[in-house]
Amino acid sequence: MTPFTSTRAKSVTAHGELALIALIRRWLGNASPRSPFGIGDDCAVIPPTKNQQLVTTDPVIHGQHFDDTVPPRAVGAKLLKRNLSDIAAMGGRPVAAVVSLALAPNTSVMWLRGFYLGLANCARRHGVKIVGGDITQGPRGFFGAFLTLHGESTGQRVVTRTGARVGDAILVTGRLGGSRAGHHYKFTPRLAEGAWLARQKDVVAMMDVSDGIAKDIRALTPQGAIASVWPPSIPVSAAAGTASGQSRRPAWMHALTDGEDYELLVVIRARTDPFEFTKRWSRHFATSLQPIGRFTRRLSPGHVDWRSLQGYEHLR
Amino acid sequence: MTPFTSTRAKSVTAHGELALIALIRRWLGNASPRSPFGIGDDCAVIPPTKNQQLVTTDPVIHGQHFDDTVPPRAVGAKLLKRNLSDIAAMGGRPVAAVVSLALAPNTSVMWLRGFYLGLANCARRHGVKIVGGDITQGPRGFFGAFLTLHGESTGQRVVTRTGARVGDAILVTGRLGGSRAGHHYKFTPRLAEGAWLARQKDVVAMMDVSDGIAKDIRALTPQGAIASVWPPSIPVSAAAGTASGQSRRPAWMHALTDGEDYELLVVIRARTDPFEFTKRWSRHFATSLQPIGRFTRRLSPGHVDWRSLQGYEHLR
Repeated sequence: MTPFTSTRAKSVTAHGELALIALIRRWLGNASPRSPFGIGDDCAVIPPTKNQQLVTTDPVIHGQHFDDTVPPRAVGAKLLKRNLSDIAAMGGRPVAAVVSLALAPNTSVMWLRGFYLGLANCARRHGVKIVGGDITQGPRGFFGAFLTLHGESTGQRVVTRTGARVGDAILVTGRLGGSRAGHHYKFTPRLAEGAWLARQKDVVAMMDVSDGIAKDIRALTPQGAIASVWPPSIPVSAAAGTASGQSRRPAWMHALTDGEDYELLVVIRARTDPFEFTKRWSRHFATSLQPIGRFTRRLSPGHVDWRSLQGYEHLR
Repeated sequence: MTPFTSTRAKSVTAHGELALIALIRRWLGNASPRSPFGIGDDCAVIPPTKNQQLVTTDPVIHGQHFDDTVPPRAVGAKLLKRNLSDIAAMGGRPVAAVVSLALAPNTSVMWLRGFYLGLANCARRHGVKIVGGDITQGPRGFFGAFLTLHGESTGQRVVTRTGARVGDAILVTGRLGGSRAGHHYKFTPRLAEGAWLARQKDVVAMMDVSDGIAKDIRALTPQGAIASVWPPSIPVSAAAGTASGQSRRPAWMHALTDGEDYELLVVIRARTDPFEFTKRWSRHFATSLQPIGRFTRRLSPGHVDWRSLQGYEHLR
């Protein structure tokens, strides 16, 4: 379904700004509290907290993060889930979000309703309040929604990207390479998993995989080390296998480079046995946690250096 | 200066995403702290606070909030100042911001540099840290920057829009109607003024004027009341006078309807003498604070009912 309509009566301009905001508040329902804790004042008020606070921002833009084949409800959910995945990657808990829309005058109200219902549904499922936002007119054929998500730490610490050392093991949740088969909007943010991982002292660094781990791993790699991965250990999704049949590149290469997996890349300290750790993990979660390599000074036999691969590059 | 270039070598695509992020971090300088308190991790971390937290979001979009006549540094400053004005309107103090960019592949790196230098300069002046963001490719000829600003209350309370009653007096800071003459990006957010006003018990409601007070006043007007204003009391800017000469509508009408004033609209309780109150104000601020009307049940003689006027309507 396309976000745009050629019938003026069905477009956002037929309603105007104030009526549209009233509709949005109705669509959001109890996912949006009353002002000043929600929409309707100059700022939204969030009560004080004793925990570390987390902030992240990610948009969905038509033609970039979704196309006309993605249902509007899934687009609304994806907008929030992209940000939830960032909160998960620090081991945090989501709290409140604001949404800034830039939309074409010919944006369909029906499509926008689906978008907000999907957003509200996802927000309720994860206990997130939609507390504010902004609507601005954009050029014809443009739809962009920019969400900023506010969260907090679930325990004593947040897990950053910078704790890895040479010798530490690299693990990944779930299966990789499914984004082309719809995983890019059907994924589940790993919030419970991230919070559990943040409580394990063995975990020294963490991030979510958004541009393909071949690219993202660079952010975790300690100075002077290489990320050395054993290809047969990569948890490849069935969709990556299909992509491989078409591209004639190995399935594990798709799994490492296709992007939008929204799985967690986890680093545990060298002295912890990765297989002991995954056994501990499997008492809590059905999702797999797979050891796939280590940070080393030199490449291990049969392993691949991730620097030789490319993830998704924006602005290219 | 236009945000776009026809020379590929001068465009953001010539750099690519990672190099561009490195440039942005350099342009922001000490306005952006190190991760995890700034750019570079999945989320930015903000230390816990005992105060009420405030969140607001406002963008700048080319063709909507600025055009090629506005210098890039002023565009960057305006982006932050629009949001600062919302924090001021609650009596708060700004803390940290994230910026999500949607930009055309032909966006000029030189223009973007000016934009970030202006943003960083404004952030430093107001003690705001730029802690994170996102860059996504948008359609050709599009530039939008979406900022979410995080703040906190300066004292015991935040001032909302909903405290006014019949009989209360309406006041406004500064002069109105100058947006067409460049005030829309040259304004100063009323942060010190807002914080002082929030400490005065007489102040029962407050908001900032972004779409013209003729429209914005509706949000402050108590049920069953009208905002009754005495036109000669409106603090009209010189620019509104010029606009009046061209449009042949009264200058005070421009002052009430032109939008983007970013002044504070303040409601004080009925039993406080507005002129006593402004005397108290003038011991602290050079900016004027002008009583302009009251919330009444019936229109006072010689007064104008603001419902008869229109402010700036988006999506029309």
